[in-house]
Amino acid sequence: MKALQFTGNKSFDLQDVDVQPPLPGEVRLKVAYCGVCGTDVHIYHGAMAQRLSLPQVIGHEVSAEIDAVGEGVTGWQPGDRVTVRPLKPGKEMPIDNGVQHIGQNLKFIGIDAPGGMQQYWNVPAYTLHRLPDNLPLTIGAMVEPLAVACHDVRLGEVKTGENVVIIGGGPIGMLIALVTKQKGANVLISEVNEARLQLAKSMGLATVNPKETDLLAHVEDFTNGAMADVVFEVSGVQAGVAVMTQLPRVRGRIVMVAIHAEPKAVDLFRFFWRELKLIGARVYEPEDFEEAISLAASNTLPLDKLITQVVPLTDAQNVFEAIDQNPAGMKYLLDIQ
Amino acid sequence: MKALQFTGNKSFDLQDVDVQPPLPGEVRLKVAYCGVCGTDVHIYHGAMAQRLSLPQVIGHEVSAEIDAVGEGVTGWQPGDRVTVRPLKPGKEMPIDNGVQHIGQNLKFIGIDAPGGMQQYWNVPAYTLHRLPDNLPLTIGAMVEPLAVACHDVRLGEVKTGENVVIIGGGPIGMLIALVTKQKGANVLISEVNEARLQLAKSMGLATVNPKETDLLAHVEDFTNGAMADVVFEVSGVQAGVAVMTQLPRVRGRIVMVAIHAEPKAVDLFRFFWRELKLIGARVYEPEDFEEAISLAASNTLPLDKLITQVVPLTDAQNVFEAIDQNPAGMKYLLDIQ
Repeated sequence: MKALQFTGNKSFDLQDVDVQPPLPGEVRLKVAYCGVCGTDVHIYHGAMAQRLSLPQVIGHEVSAEIDAVGEGVTGWQPGDRVTVRPLKPGKEMPIDNGVQHIGQNLKFIGIDAPGGMQQYWNVPAYTLHRLPDNLPLTIGAMVEPLAVACHDVRLGEVKTGENVVIIGGGPIGMLIALVTKQKGANVLISEVNEARLQLAKSMGLATVNPKETDLLAHVEDFTNGAMADVVFEVSGVQAGVAVMTQLPRVRGRIVMVAIHAEPKAVDLFRFFWRELKLIGARVYEPEDFEEAISLAASNTLPLDKLITQVVPLTDAQNVFEAIDQNPAGMKYLLDIQ
Repeated sequence: MKALQFTGNKSFDLQDVDVQPPLPGEVRLKVAYCGVCGTDVHIYHGAMAQRLSLPQVIGHEVSAEIDAVGEGVTGWQPGDRVTVRPLKPGKEMPIDNGVQHIGQNLKFIGIDAPGGMQQYWNVPAYTLHRLPDNLPLTIGAMVEPLAVACHDVRLGEVKTGENVVIIGGGPIGMLIALVTKQKGANVLISEVNEARLQLAKSMGLATVNPKETDLLAHVEDFTNGAMADVVFEVSGVQAGVAVMTQLPRVRGRIVMVAIHAEPKAVDLFRFFWRELKLIGARVYEPEDFEEAISLAASNTLPLDKLITQVVPLTDAQNVFEAIDQNPAGMKYLLDIQ
């Protein structure tokens, strides 16, 4: 079978390797599509090197069919259509507070263990979620990022009729916008890239470019003076952090979705003054996958518009190079069938 | 009557002024004690000058007896023992989100309107809370800061058995410690001033000096590896902000009590990584005053130990000067009877 090995130094090598039997408790998947995540691009750039064992297959946004079932696995059959929740919780520690999906000993499949950019992939059976028959496998590969958005929105406790501002219109920002809009919120995306703004508009989302428009005045107008109930910080930049505290009304919530590698200057006075809440949100729990699958299968979200391009696995190296040169691109899927 | 007029430039002037009749809806209080708040000290240093009308009486931590009742006031009689919740909510705005106690048009009595450092003080009747007969009026003047602590603890949702770390052992930090301990939490105060540490110990509180002890290792030990469920940031300094994100376990809460006038460097990655919450908390709501009065009247908190000194109104100038020279001092009460 073909396996896309990341060899470091921004390089992939498409190798022929043997298909392995699934271990007890595992299933072997025949991978259909694997999305390229921002995390994969970070790895391509050399980040998280200490967590990888090079050469290594990466990738974790997968749709697949079950090819073989390992010893002791029940409830799954060859041919079942699935996606993978790529989390292996380790030994529970007191500091984990009983929260399994982000425990201290968590391993992330596709980083800490081989990922889905290969034709056959063995994963623990407990990571599987079933895809409905009517869900195209391309959209099935969107379930993992959609589950991130569902988790962010759930932890942000977004309710019908609330005013929501999303700072940053990348794939996760767009998905948060679609999920909150589906929940009946009044949603605005703030984004500086013109192509992303056009894409958001084409999906029926309200947009603002804070480089061209006074964002505070625009949000005041957009919300009839109420300002935001919930702000999602998805930009990862200081300008986003500076504005995130300016947008919420009294007791508004700010959901921290972005990964800020360095400490940022935060207006803590505004947290005190307006009794704001900052809520960190990371990956997902099983119920977020179930919600994402249900939303995707309902066919009410224009998820297909977020798929920039579907390319064969043989073109993977070109895709990673293209992503670097096209900040407006959304989701690239590798066709691994 | 005597009224302590703040005249600016770190100066007070004890003046003889006429007693005024209460307006409709007001009561006239005969003030017993008025505590000196950190806010009063900030005013003394020249802060919030644009909110004052000099010369002005300041002060808002008051115990009193009702002296006269204005037109239309029901439920109150001369002789009733009271404290004052010094908030005048103004016209409600959409941005207020229905939260009255920190609305955009809120006026704080003692800053935006004359305060309690005078023998007779007219306030709206709706600001009053009744003090039980068994509560000494010295302790009655502690109800307002205790209500701040009750509000902080309520918004932090502290539960029995939880591990709580308080960064900063000033008056509010100490009160938060006493309130959380009373709720059955396992409480630790981190403070650098030796006299404050001794005072905390004398009240039966666990303490740590982070300049002498590795705070993270100490908290790990203190919590048997679980780390903090709730951290209260009451220090107002960058060192406190730097450590506040290091102490909580997964899904721990950080309550922002301190007033950080300038943006501070915050480890936002840790919010994402451990799904932490930051919760801003400001002043109090009526139920916090009721809880504070009930706690004070239960006589289970050593509130008297927090009273550094009771001094006559004639010594007010000296008290403010003394506070500047004694960072270990806690609560100074002016005796206004």
